Amino acid sequence: MSQAGTKPPSGTRDFLPDEIRRREHVVRIVREVYESHGFEPLETPAFENIETLLGKYGEEGNKLIFKILRRGEHEAGGEADLALRYDLTVPLARVVAQYQNDLPRFFKRYQIQPVWRADRPARGRFREFYQCDIDAIGSTSPVVEAELLAAVSQVLARLGFDDFVIRLNHRGALTAMLQCAGIPESQHADALVSLDKLAKIGPEGVEADMRGRGIDAAATLTCLGFLNGIRRDDPHDAGPIERFGDFVRSHHAGPAAVSELDQILRLSDGTPAHGRIRIDPSLARGLSYYTGAIMEIAVPDLPGSLGGGGRYDNLVGMFLGRDVAACGFSLGLERIIVVMSERGMFPARVSRAAVDVMVTFLSDELRADALKLAAELRAEKLRVEVYPEVSRRFDKPLKYASSRNVPVLAIIGEDEHARGEVAVRDLQTRQQEAAPRDTAASWIAARVRIDR
Amino acid sequence: MSQAGTKPPSGTRDFLPDEIRRREHVVRIVREVYESHGFEPLETPAFENIETLLGKYGEEGNKLIFKILRRGEHEAGGEADLALRYDLTVPLARVVAQYQNDLPRFFKRYQIQPVWRADRPARGRFREFYQCDIDAIGSTSPVVEAELLAAVSQVLARLGFDDFVIRLNHRGALTAMLQCAGIPESQHADALVSLDKLAKIGPEGVEADMRGRGIDAAATLTCLGFLNGIRRDDPHDAGPIERFGDFVRSHHAGPAAVSELDQILRLSDGTPAHGRIRIDPSLARGLSYYTGAIMEIAVPDLPGSLGGGGRYDNLVGMFLGRDVAACGFSLGLERIIVVMSERGMFPARVSRAAVDVMVTFLSDELRADALKLAAELRAEKLRVEVYPEVSRRFDKPLKYASSRNVPVLAIIGEDEHARGEVAVRDLQTRQQEAAPRDTAASWIAARVRIDR
Repeated sequence: MSQAGTKPPSGTRDFLPDEIRRREHVVRIVREVYESHGFEPLETPAFENIETLLGKYGEEGNKLIFKILRRGEHEAGGEADLALRYDLTVPLARVVAQYQNDLPRFFKRYQIQPVWRADRPARGRFREFYQCDIDAIGSTSPVVEAELLAAVSQVLARLGFDDFVIRLNHRGALTAMLQCAGIPESQHADALVSLDKLAKIGPEGVEADMRGRGIDAAATLTCLGFLNGIRRDDPHDAGPIERFGDFVRSHHAGPAAVSELDQILRLSDGTPAHGRIRIDPSLARGLSYYTGAIMEIAVPDLPGSLGGGGRYDNLVGMFLGRDVAACGFSLGLERIIVVMSERGMFPARVSRAAVDVMVTFLSDELRADALKLAAELRAEKLRVEVYPEVSRRFDKPLKYASSRNVPVLAIIGEDEHARGEVAVRDLQTRQQEAAPRDTAASWIAARVRIDR
Repeated sequence: MSQAGTKPPSGTRDFLPDEIRRREHVVRIVREVYESHGFEPLETPAFENIETLLGKYGEEGNKLIFKILRRGEHEAGGEADLALRYDLTVPLARVVAQYQNDLPRFFKRYQIQPVWRADRPARGRFREFYQCDIDAIGSTSPVVEAELLAAVSQVLARLGFDDFVIRLNHRGALTAMLQCAGIPESQHADALVSLDKLAKIGPEGVEADMRGRGIDAAATLTCLGFLNGIRRDDPHDAGPIERFGDFVRSHHAGPAAVSELDQILRLSDGTPAHGRIRIDPSLARGLSYYTGAIMEIAVPDLPGSLGGGGRYDNLVGMFLGRDVAACGFSLGLERIIVVMSERGMFPARVSRAAVDVMVTFLSDELRADALKLAAELRAEKLRVEVYPEVSRRFDKPLKYASSRNVPVLAIIGEDEHARGEVAVRDLQTRQQEAAPRDTAASWIAARVRIDR
């Protein structure tokens, strides 16, 4: 097979050790924090029966689903009966229906698994990528939103983000705003697509875009005027909530929606989300299935978001045939890793060498003792590799240990062995010392620990 | 969709929290031990280009591979271009070829990922299951085998297995044994299938089976006589190695193969595999691709094995067009979890409640304080859930907390709040005490920690 034939499939990646360690660092913290907030782990199969997924993601989604051929005699028919997981929400909905009698009334789960989408691969867009979701099922209380934001904020803080901002809006308040600005419901979807670009193309851009979509110019200006009046920078300014409430006062559901935002804000006061939340009436987030609060987290100097979510009270019940209250948040795991790498936010231990000590032996008779020393060093909680081949001199193992950034080389040679010693070489200082063989493991361990 | 439509696909499982915690407990120890032995993590995509997998697992294997339909305009053609990972060895071979210039000369990797096989589902046989492999690439030294056995033994010891036995044999010694017994090479494959059943069907069964396969009766008896003479029970008895060596003395490669077994045994003396290894000339392990030592780990009272492996020096190089030395071991993760569950080997903390403290509030005005107390308790490293809905009395949250086995309920009620207190109820003893609100978190934390 040619060299080209050994690449991973288009849009997928092999994860070599360093990349896995970075992801594991993030995942470990995510799990710890989510567990501390009462979320429990869930995992579902990589594939679902095809009818479970088809029709759940729209026409475009259907095309992007990886479909698995039927097997055996049916294979030649070219039909598919299974499909790869496309997101973590539809499997959650299936699980909620299947285990409804076993799950707690307020089911809070986190799920960190890959999903697959047959998107055209591009820079930063993969066909296999991890999603990292939390969802709280079973309650419409704004305590749920506050707890989600607390958990996500705690994750980001623990990862070392000190400049993230949570943009918060409400689907009902958004509808009320458009209505009160004079945009009829039939144009809401269009208007939201336009508004979603506000940060990117500015008010003039949105004005032109709205005009292009046939939205009334006066209504557009009213809308933009309101958004311009909301100050988004001062977290201590109660202004945005009041202005938002004033603006949607005449809409039947507007005040209740804005009051929910106000409650989420107040409930977050004593949590890690405190001071992070900005009311942003221009936040739209797709909108297709959200029914209440919507939120998105960003860092100021980077386009795009680190994650987003919201309340969606009629999706998780899709397999139950009734509405089930639900609120969720999806962290952009891959993006978080990219940003942390660019900013140098990973602690040194994540990228330090995979091995603390390499043991080498200078004759075949000394192999068993090398393995014994390795076992002793491992009992001292060190990560140890044995150079597997015999070397008459230690220059080859030394070069190899250096190339792998191993800090310490323990050399078991004939002369040292006869003297009851082990030669221990520090590869940074290039100093070599003799340690007594019988206490060599603790001697080396003390040394390596000082260096950490 | 009907209730039946919410089951996971045939042969796959949803993993609910308790099952994930059990797997995570095992995986955490596996990773720690493998890392301490210098193995590094590798992950490959869930699917490979179909030509990477086809033809690698024989005719039967080809049929069991899940194949993914081409997408877009090609979908109707019914052709597949991708296929789900079938094992972790072929992807490793691809990785070794693709990154040959970046990987260390002695590449030691562990890989813990699901694989998919379209087997007929049965009790204990799944279509999606985890494999857990270590492989050491690049050296033919028996130090490699000894290190693998040390690592695997350490994993099992750390998991709490104190009765496992490593059966060790050698593909070359096996060939020599059959040859010396008078079985011609053309009948070796048949003879090995037969011998592999020795433990199950006994010598008489093997005799009949060999006869059925047309193997010379005298040769069969010679073979069985030899195997019967090997004492498999006393680890301190050097007999088996000597007898094995004697028996294959006249074969050109026999003595070297037995000497390798002897070396592995001696090299293991100072490692966690010490005292665990039994030379077993009847161990066959499929044989298709092994070229040297083969090993299998079992616990005495259970049929089947907890894992197995061996040396296979001409498989990993399949994409490179040259032989690459390799030796690997695959732990049966799913089976280990089953055995540990049956034997009650999981520590109590793995199955303890997901939440240490539940916080409940008895009026809407107290919600924010409940969230604040939850944040304070989390800062004390407790896992905390907030009962999301208001309850005028605490009987409902109490019942809910009990049903989830939460040990402590913290109740924020009007009266307590007015007195600057929190009511703390121990759900085991049913005792309730008042804690001062300002130090409630550390007060509760001290209490919960004592109970652990």
